[in-house]
Amino acid sequence: MSDTVVVGLDVGGTSTRATALGLDGQRLGTGRAGGGNPTSHGAERAAAELLAALRQALVDVDPARVRAGTIGLAGAGRLLADPAGRDAFDRAWRDAGLRCPYAVHGDALVAYASGTASPDGTVVIAGTGAIAAGVRELRLDRVADGHGWLLGDAGSGFWLGREAVRRLLADLDRGHAPGRLATAVLAELLGCADVAARPRDTVDALVQAVTRRSPVELARLAPLVVAAAVDGEPVAAGLIDEAAAHLVESTARIRPVGDASPIVLGGGLLTGDTPLAAAVRVRVARQWPDAPLHSAGDGAAAAAWLAARDLPEVTDPAALHALLVPATA
Amino acid sequence: MSDTVVVGLDVGGTSTRATALGLDGQRLGTGRAGGGNPTSHGAERAAAELLAALRQALVDVDPARVRAGTIGLAGAGRLLADPAGRDAFDRAWRDAGLRCPYAVHGDALVAYASGTASPDGTVVIAGTGAIAAGVRELRLDRVADGHGWLLGDAGSGFWLGREAVRRLLADLDRGHAPGRLATAVLAELLGCADVAARPRDTVDALVQAVTRRSPVELARLAPLVVAAAVDGEPVAAGLIDEAAAHLVESTARIRPVGDASPIVLGGGLLTGDTPLAAAVRVRVARQWPDAPLHSAGDGAAAAAWLAARDLPEVTDPAALHALLVPATA
Repeated sequence: MSDTVVVGLDVGGTSTRATALGLDGQRLGTGRAGGGNPTSHGAERAAAELLAALRQALVDVDPARVRAGTIGLAGAGRLLADPAGRDAFDRAWRDAGLRCPYAVHGDALVAYASGTASPDGTVVIAGTGAIAAGVRELRLDRVADGHGWLLGDAGSGFWLGREAVRRLLADLDRGHAPGRLATAVLAELLGCADVAARPRDTVDALVQAVTRRSPVELARLAPLVVAAAVDGEPVAAGLIDEAAAHLVESTARIRPVGDASPIVLGGGLLTGDTPLAAAVRVRVARQWPDAPLHSAGDGAAAAAWLAARDLPEVTDPAALHALLVPATA
Repeated sequence: MSDTVVVGLDVGGTSTRATALGLDGQRLGTGRAGGGNPTSHGAERAAAELLAALRQALVDVDPARVRAGTIGLAGAGRLLADPAGRDAFDRAWRDAGLRCPYAVHGDALVAYASGTASPDGTVVIAGTGAIAAGVRELRLDRVADGHGWLLGDAGSGFWLGREAVRRLLADLDRGHAPGRLATAVLAELLGCADVAARPRDTVDALVQAVTRRSPVELARLAPLVVAAAVDGEPVAAGLIDEAAAHLVESTARIRPVGDASPIVLGGGLLTGDTPLAAAVRVRVARQWPDAPLHSAGDGAAAAAWLAARDLPEVTDPAALHALLVPATA
């Protein structure tokens, strides 16, 4: 058996995860640190989290055995364009004792690779934001949406949260009693689910409560929509279905009719057995009936696989994927 | 003939207009000054513009003859709730030589009164933002939307501008050549209508150009949509129709089916013979076939009329409206 080790990192806004894998699939170490997105946290801070996660993953591994590594992160293009950011990452890599080169890929590609070994396909991601991307020969090709909360992110967590507030405001405008989802949103935003004697006072308080914070924090209401949809609340179920329609519409911008390549669903709202994933699966099956559908899985392991693929001893990347990346639905 | 003079002010975000009228309808003076919205400009600045407009309007009028006055402005409620703001306005009023009391009304009520003398009806306003309000005995009653650009203003200038950019981004995602409206938006935002060799570069540049500015500046793109719709451009025509649907949906939240009271259309996008006004008229006529439809007119004259109505010598407010407020369509 080869002595070779590969390292993969999945750098997200809230956590950084590292994994060290043998080419036989043995998990030699894992590490976890704080959010390390260089766009939101600064490259120095991101590099520090990267180093912390790497050191944990390499506690029982001789770094000289590590032959390849990949870092997956949002805003990868911006990091590579910024010499200071690249320097900070280079330093963290060396400080962890690593001497091999590393590649940097966007989080969308890593999410894709965590769901399938196929070099061509599509990834659809819905978390705080939303994006769909075509993958060709394991590189991001065309992209749809990902335009941010002001202009896009249709069907994202931000979108669900904003629409939930909009439905509540419409109820109040109409003088209707808020429904179940609207009541939950009201309680979350104002700390109390009572409507004022003049409903317009509650409207004003809600608008103020939302506009006091960063707009993107509306995404924090998305779990209320998901929970209400699981309970069968009709407004929430309608919003989930509308969000799914948006995500599939974005996907259709970049994915031809009849395409039979795999589709990977990623991001917090689409990974696993969520109502939004279920709604997207129904619409995808209608539009691309021959496409295998996968859920995104272990991003750090997928990053390690992306690193390993180019090693000379790797002759069957798909077989290696089966060994390295835990299977998902 | 009565020697009585009434004064009206229409305080908007971009200009402040004042008018001094005799009860026979004679226009004794007008004044115009800069934007005076106390919410956006601060009460001191707003009061200074108010004073400048008032002084112009009273150049040829003995202030002692002024027996009543009304100020119409956005955020009237906030002004009245703030003692410092109220003080600043009181001082401007006295500095103009006026000794009579004055009333403060919301700009929506003044827009309503500029279109009809009927004490009960509905006003629909679309400018930068959008709001619909019921009027009962010449007081604002229930209100729909006006929730601001993040959560509402559906069908407003902001909404039109944002949707125009979203259609452009969708064209670029799809790899389509931008249509006529999309090309105009591209040229306005980037100073050049060419799409980059990688369309995603143009997408990124557009998102950056928009997010560098205040979101509400998207409303500055609305005239492009209006102009394209006048030229019959199909995307623009579709957006105008969608905006009209939103405005009528907001109105229906507060206006019962079958209501035959008048509807006044106000705000820059609905005043006069605009495509959005035409689209709203079609939908309103379908939903409230018996409602007279009016366009908002001279807000300062309407404010003066609102002030005059309560004077003891005024016995027929509707007849006085015909004298004081220039008729609109």
